[in-house]
Amino acid sequence: MDPRAFIRVKRDRGTHPPQDLRAFVAAAARGEVPDYQVAAWLMAAFLNGLDPAETDALTVAMVHSGRTFDWRDLGRPSADKHSTGGVGDKISLVLAPLVAACGVLVPMVSGRGLGHTGGTLDKLESIPGFRTRMSPEAMRAQLDSLGVVMVGQGPDLAPADGLLYALRDVTSTVEFEPFIVSSIVSKKIAEGAEAIVYDVKCGSGAFMKTRETAAQLARRLVAATRAQGRASAALVTDMSQPLGHAAGNALEVREAIETLQGGGPPDVRSLTLELASLMLQRSGAEADPRAAGERAARALDSGAAWQKFVAMVAAQGGDASALEHPERLPRAPVVLPVAAARDGVLAAVDTFALGELGVEIGAGRRAREDAVDPRVGFVIRARIGDRVAAGEALAEAHLASARPDVVARAALCFEVRDEGAAPPLVIERMD
Amino acid sequence: MDPRAFIRVKRDRGTHPPQDLRAFVAAAARGEVPDYQVAAWLMAAFLNGLDPAETDALTVAMVHSGRTFDWRDLGRPSADKHSTGGVGDKISLVLAPLVAACGVLVPMVSGRGLGHTGGTLDKLESIPGFRTRMSPEAMRAQLDSLGVVMVGQGPDLAPADGLLYALRDVTSTVEFEPFIVSSIVSKKIAEGAEAIVYDVKCGSGAFMKTRETAAQLARRLVAATRAQGRASAALVTDMSQPLGHAAGNALEVREAIETLQGGGPPDVRSLTLELASLMLQRSGAEADPRAAGERAARALDSGAAWQKFVAMVAAQGGDASALEHPERLPRAPVVLPVAAARDGVLAAVDTFALGELGVEIGAGRRAREDAVDPRVGFVIRARIGDRVAAGEALAEAHLASARPDVVARAALCFEVRDEGAAPPLVIERMD
Repeated sequence: MDPRAFIRVKRDRGTHPPQDLRAFVAAAARGEVPDYQVAAWLMAAFLNGLDPAETDALTVAMVHSGRTFDWRDLGRPSADKHSTGGVGDKISLVLAPLVAACGVLVPMVSGRGLGHTGGTLDKLESIPGFRTRMSPEAMRAQLDSLGVVMVGQGPDLAPADGLLYALRDVTSTVEFEPFIVSSIVSKKIAEGAEAIVYDVKCGSGAFMKTRETAAQLARRLVAATRAQGRASAALVTDMSQPLGHAAGNALEVREAIETLQGGGPPDVRSLTLELASLMLQRSGAEADPRAAGERAARALDSGAAWQKFVAMVAAQGGDASALEHPERLPRAPVVLPVAAARDGVLAAVDTFALGELGVEIGAGRRAREDAVDPRVGFVIRARIGDRVAAGEALAEAHLASARPDVVARAALCFEVRDEGAAPPLVIERMD
Repeated sequence: MDPRAFIRVKRDRGTHPPQDLRAFVAAAARGEVPDYQVAAWLMAAFLNGLDPAETDALTVAMVHSGRTFDWRDLGRPSADKHSTGGVGDKISLVLAPLVAACGVLVPMVSGRGLGHTGGTLDKLESIPGFRTRMSPEAMRAQLDSLGVVMVGQGPDLAPADGLLYALRDVTSTVEFEPFIVSSIVSKKIAEGAEAIVYDVKCGSGAFMKTRETAAQLARRLVAATRAQGRASAALVTDMSQPLGHAAGNALEVREAIETLQGGGPPDVRSLTLELASLMLQRSGAEADPRAAGERAARALDSGAAWQKFVAMVAAQGGDASALEHPERLPRAPVVLPVAAARDGVLAAVDTFALGELGVEIGAGRRAREDAVDPRVGFVIRARIGDRVAAGEALAEAHLASARPDVVARAALCFEVRDEGAAPPLVIERMD
């Protein structure tokens, strides 16, 4: 492994043989390639591209840089879901217990919110006492007994991805599809689920702004996952407005509870059921799409998913009584309405700006070490296409203190015009 | 200075404002930008380009990262020459004392050989006792009294260039014209000569293989030097065969002595005089080209250049008696002929391979810390276009021990065909 020769290949628009790429990443993960050589390669790859075979080799190298889980000896199908992130995306909270209630193991490893998007771990931690760190042995025991576990990523899972991500962050090489694909897929592969379903968000609140870029990412995620011998499928779904009503950690847990109890916003319920159906199908638990959909809906409507959620929260140290009595969840002291400036139809939401505003009031974090305030966020009442009247509350701002400036800026995120049409929730299906 | 934003500009094919580029390089030189960010930027610049204004800003930043000399208070014109490197290029040994003998200060800072090319410092050090390290005060005193000094580059001259070069070397970003130009020009500017003349080598023994790339580099060197307020000119000269006969440190000193004494190979004499004439013109010592040429020739033929050389060697601790008696210079114990395989005309010399073979026998170095053997090298008798007979000695190999393998490989560097024509020595003039 001569790093200079390796870098030169990509500098000159060459293609890395898979074994070379694996050797480079493995050496980098062992600390044998200095950061400056990794950085130069990252930029060369960013500018000159990596083809699918190179992306697959990069993925394999990152998987093998750390611990890998394998749950096959538990004797049941397994599935996991990954979302590329958005505002108000609390799907995992409902989906994981729901799919487990259908008899499919869900070993779900989630992340924290970063930038304008929320993170499942932060949401779960707004339940008093809930633990997201767990030993592999404890994970296995809970998965065997309950069928579901929701934890954070330990430092031993795909550590090469952690190293590369840290360098990408400081060398402005983050926004590059092969790096994004290998980073996501390597962690999911290491987590051990046999089927992996992707929810690729698209629109103003997503990293992918256009249908084309989102669909391309979805296709690559599915292909890269299948290349590692796992079943996969993907949906491209709307993030031109927040998902459901709530955006904020405890607020989203409340909405997840409503959904698990058979209510909740229609889009949250509908997307959860569609993703659950795909997980049942791809894991082999229920091959027929229609039967899979019905089984998922039954688990939600029968209360089985809800019971699974309560049991999981209790098993992971959370205060299950706070689920039965959501008023015991953290609650913001100040709630202010965000009013429409004029009569008309809600035509667009600047979901990115709304997410950024959420970070500013404490619902998210700018740096990994920041703390979040579980209480704060927004509850968005109006949806794109809704007719609204001047002065009507489009949303509520849940705040730690009175912040009229936040309310004023939140109002600017909602665009009321003469016309507007509700966007479709599921934009494209790759299954 | 946000290095990430700076890197992003070049990643996205943007142009750096000069002040940003200077701030980045200055911060890097102060150790405030980590190597991995510098490395990512180097690759982005390598792949997306730097325009002339950016190259000039980079040059300024490197000049100001360290010590700069200024000899204007000595009250005489000054000039320096830089060669891009080749095999057998001993011009500086003759040129510096010659131009000094014409009344122009020559503060010459040279490098060591690296790769297949030789270095002026290594050649000078084959003179017993010769010192190439000198304090700025001693340089100034000698320049004032003798008009010429030949030293090595201290670590305080354009240290940012040293830092960037070390990173370019390990990140495969060496061969990029704006980096090459700013690296060369920044050191020459810091050395303080008012006029800088470039000898850009072209052909099989040079870094630039084609006339087009060499001419482009020559133009950029002249433009970049003038942008810093110094007079400049350049020649593109032939390196399709070694310059003169000798290639090897003490062997080249002998040939330089012959030239300084009015003899020497015609190409060495002719190129030295042409470069000297340009230095006299550009420094303002002699505006008329014809008068400048005549003055240079007079200094060589009168013995004035030779006396200046002897005085300089003595002043820098060298054994001047070894110059008067060149048999006292280091001498290889074994000399073997390299014979022509057939009758015909010498049509081509693989000068790069011959240079590499020279490194292998000890005349050059692979790594900066390697020692060189001053005794060894080649004396090439035949020149391209010469008619040769089978078995005739095309060259002699000067070796530390009998190495028939070296002789056999040296023979392969000479291509004898039915026809062949002598190449022109000076290919292009930029003055």
